[in-house]
Amino acid sequence: MDNPFYRRDVISTRDIARDELEMLFKATDRIREMSMQERLSICKGKVLCYLFFEPSTRTRLSFEIAMASIGGTSIGIASGKESSMEKGESLVDTIRVVDSYSDVIVLRHWLDGSARLAAEVAEKPVINAGSGAEEHPTQAMLDLYTMMKEKGRIDGLKIGIVGDLKYSRTVYSLLYALARYSVEVHLIAPPMLRIRRESLYALDSLHIKEHDSIDEVIDVLDVIYVTRIQRERFPDPHEYEKVKHSYIIDGRVLEDAKSDAILLHPLPRVDEVAYEVDSDSRARYFKQASYGKDVRAALLALIINPNLPV
Amino acid sequence: MDNPFYRRDVISTRDIARDELEMLFKATDRIREMSMQERLSICKGKVLCYLFFEPSTRTRLSFEIAMASIGGTSIGIASGKESSMEKGESLVDTIRVVDSYSDVIVLRHWLDGSARLAAEVAEKPVINAGSGAEEHPTQAMLDLYTMMKEKGRIDGLKIGIVGDLKYSRTVYSLLYALARYSVEVHLIAPPMLRIRRESLYALDSLHIKEHDSIDEVIDVLDVIYVTRIQRERFPDPHEYEKVKHSYIIDGRVLEDAKSDAILLHPLPRVDEVAYEVDSDSRARYFKQASYGKDVRAALLALIINPNLPV
Amino acid sequence: MDNPFYRRDVISTRDIARDELEMLFKATDRIREMSMQERLSICKGKVLCYLFFEPSTRTRLSFEIAMASIGGTSIGIASGKESSMEKGESLVDTIRVVDSYSDVIVLRHWLDGSARLAAEVAEKPVINAGSGAEEHPTQAMLDLYTMMKEKGRIDGLKIGIVGDLKYSRTVYSLLYALARYSVEVHLIAPPMLRIRRESLYALDSLHIKEHDSIDEVIDVLDVIYVTRIQRERFPDPHEYEKVKHSYIIDGRVLEDAKSDAILLHPLPRVDEVAYEVDSDSRARYFKQASYGKDVRAALLALIINPNLPV
Repeated sequence: MDNPFYRRDVISTRDIARDELEMLFKATDRIREMSMQERLSICKGKVLCYLFFEPSTRTRLSFEIAMASIGGTSIGIASGKESSMEKGESLVDTIRVVDSYSDVIVLRHWLDGSARLAAEVAEKPVINAGSGAEEHPTQAMLDLYTMMKEKGRIDGLKIGIVGDLKYSRTVYSLLYALARYSVEVHLIAPPMLRIRRESLYALDSLHIKEHDSIDEVIDVLDVIYVTRIQRERFPDPHEYEKVKHSYIIDGRVLEDAKSDAILLHPLPRVDEVAYEVDSDSRARYFKQASYGKDVRAALLALIINPNLPV
Repeated sequence: MDNPFYRRDVISTRDIARDELEMLFKATDRIREMSMQERLSICKGKVLCYLFFEPSTRTRLSFEIAMASIGGTSIGIASGKESSMEKGESLVDTIRVVDSYSDVIVLRHWLDGSARLAAEVAEKPVINAGSGAEEHPTQAMLDLYTMMKEKGRIDGLKIGIVGDLKYSRTVYSLLYALARYSVEVHLIAPPMLRIRRESLYALDSLHIKEHDSIDEVIDVLDVIYVTRIQRERFPDPHEYEKVKHSYIIDGRVLEDAKSDAILLHPLPRVDEVAYEVDSDSRARYFKQASYGKDVRAALLALIINPNLPV
Repeated sequence: MDNPFYRRDVISTRDIARDELEMLFKATDRIREMSMQERLSICKGKVLCYLFFEPSTRTRLSFEIAMASIGGTSIGIASGKESSMEKGESLVDTIRVVDSYSDVIVLRHWLDGSARLAAEVAEKPVINAGSGAEEHPTQAMLDLYTMMKEKGRIDGLKIGIVGDLKYSRTVYSLLYALARYSVEVHLIAPPMLRIRRESLYALDSLHIKEHDSIDEVIDVLDVIYVTRIQRERFPDPHEYEKVKHSYIIDGRVLEDAKSDAILLHPLPRVDEVAYEVDSDSRARYFKQASYGKDVRAALLALIINPNLPV
């Protein structure tokens, strides 16, 4: 199979076919096995430019370390405050300028459509690292890679996604990616934070059920994927206090979970996964974060280097 | 010609002779043609320290990518907020400390005289990346390089400089550099934003005319160089609204321009160049930004490496 | 002697024996003499992750340049504002994530106990770059290295430490390190800024005297170590104005100092060392800062590379 990622924008998991995901996972395995010497030669002399207009620790650092691990350099802006955006410059102008500086652009922006717009403007490939409430495709890639490594397969899994499904861009990217597989998806959210129907496209193939509480379904799940619920989303904070316990994973909730279930979280968490759970062998969110740098290294390698040996 | 830039401060274009500019442009051409391997060896193991006390996207990133492209590393502070200046440390102390950490220092500071002061204090060469309302010499270098590449020559050009000439440090550096050539300069600005006479030195050789409106002169210009007009400069915002249209380049204004004129802008722009103009073949400001990293790579190479082959 | 720093946390100078300090100083000498080629191979492909939740210029840059000088890469966050801590993430979660991204973690945090906590959580070695009002051990290491290089020895020195001793973490680390040597320590501070007894452990071996004013003791000191006095520490600013002159080193004070004394300061300074003193040959604080990058390079090399040739 030719490398379908070479010089390609990564804006939405909707654009990525199953065999492409599997090629990415294979490249990830390959890169993890490489000698340091071999890895450092993949993107020697290449430059990643990151533009993070929203704060981030793990995503930005994960891209930087991924790029460093394959021999490349990262430059960029870590928050909107540092940039000429403060002088009123448009995103389009910023993209046009950094386009000439870099081999790949990694963008996080609060605006829906920002990544798609950047990709249209830039000649260099653009990776969406979070656009508004839309998508965060590399998070979904590492989520699936984690399921693959920790459960041995994706097809056949029963996957529960818990929390704020309305505003979590991670969830939309994850659903589009899961739609390439035969899985059963359980969405667990308070009524006002249910998935946005109007933001879902082409998910007919996906078997989805919705629930009001994690208790209804915890005992059948192979994967429990938790996202943050932000108090600010609730018009009335008392509403939040009333419902939040139905979406918090603690030791008691895990008692009902399968013994070989895995618990994932895109992080950062606030209090939706209790700290007591960290020591449970089913908690895999830190391992998930760790896989992130490898999946991103593979993605960058495939995008920048046409000859990545996989 | 020996390398006159080796270990030299770059504070003002007033200090740089014509043959030195031409050597820099030749080095820029040379570096653009080098193999990656050759480029990466020029500043291997060398460190650029940037100190940006005013926000910047393109200048800082352009220096970082320039340094990376010749094998060096960049470290520094991207905004005053990150630094010990918040603890009340003087610029002089900061410079003295980073002086021992780096091979070249790149400084942007809001204070007039800051770069000159830093150069006096530091043993390592200091590059002025913008000091108060004074100068921004590497911007002028890339502006001239752009004219050279896009118009084939500098001598004989008719160059219009439009906008806020009073506070734009870019313009002062540009005028001093242009004074090394035989050019005709047209300054186009509202009365209250005209060039500061008291800040001009040794420009007698330069043929300068001043205008109130771009319309008076647009049809003779080979180069139209536009700078931002900042609303905040006007005591009365209504004043700004009244005059701004005389200094905005849009499709209508360009109708009267020469078909082979080129339109430059140091960027960022706000609204002084209409977006409709971006697709006009005369618009070269993104190309100009792109040349910036090459000119800066050449300058850094000349400053750090005595043996740059040119 | 085996390398006792390999994969080891550096949280407090209390944990470091005299022969370990001396090995570090020997490694520092060795690294300063190495060829660039040799140095750049020590940590090739290795990654330092810095997490600075308090602003810093010199410490962060010093670690970055140290890492670059031995061939490694640094990534991280330069201020709490950039990070997911703004989303409410706990320090523990942040540490767990970056733990998988890096070979060594360098942490500065406003909280007492933060570095110790991070070290417990992380599998990778953690270097404390300042934790609350507790400690800043690498500063003490470079302080002692400076004394060694500039005075030729540490044993037998009479060392005055002046200023805010109550809240300066640098001072606590310095005292613990000095306790490994036979020195006479004079602590000079206003009554309300005296050393915190309850924060001192196992200093019985150290010969300490306390003074209210630098004048009482200036003439016997071999090392005058000055720290900032922060106005904000005083409930009443007038109190500060009254006492500050007893803790400011200026030309007049230095007249009474030994001709071969050395004047150190961890920097940044505000006004506790007068600028006129910079040109006095006894002023060594910029040299001290310069040694900092070398000592940190040696420490990083020892921590990351088991085979550092010393």
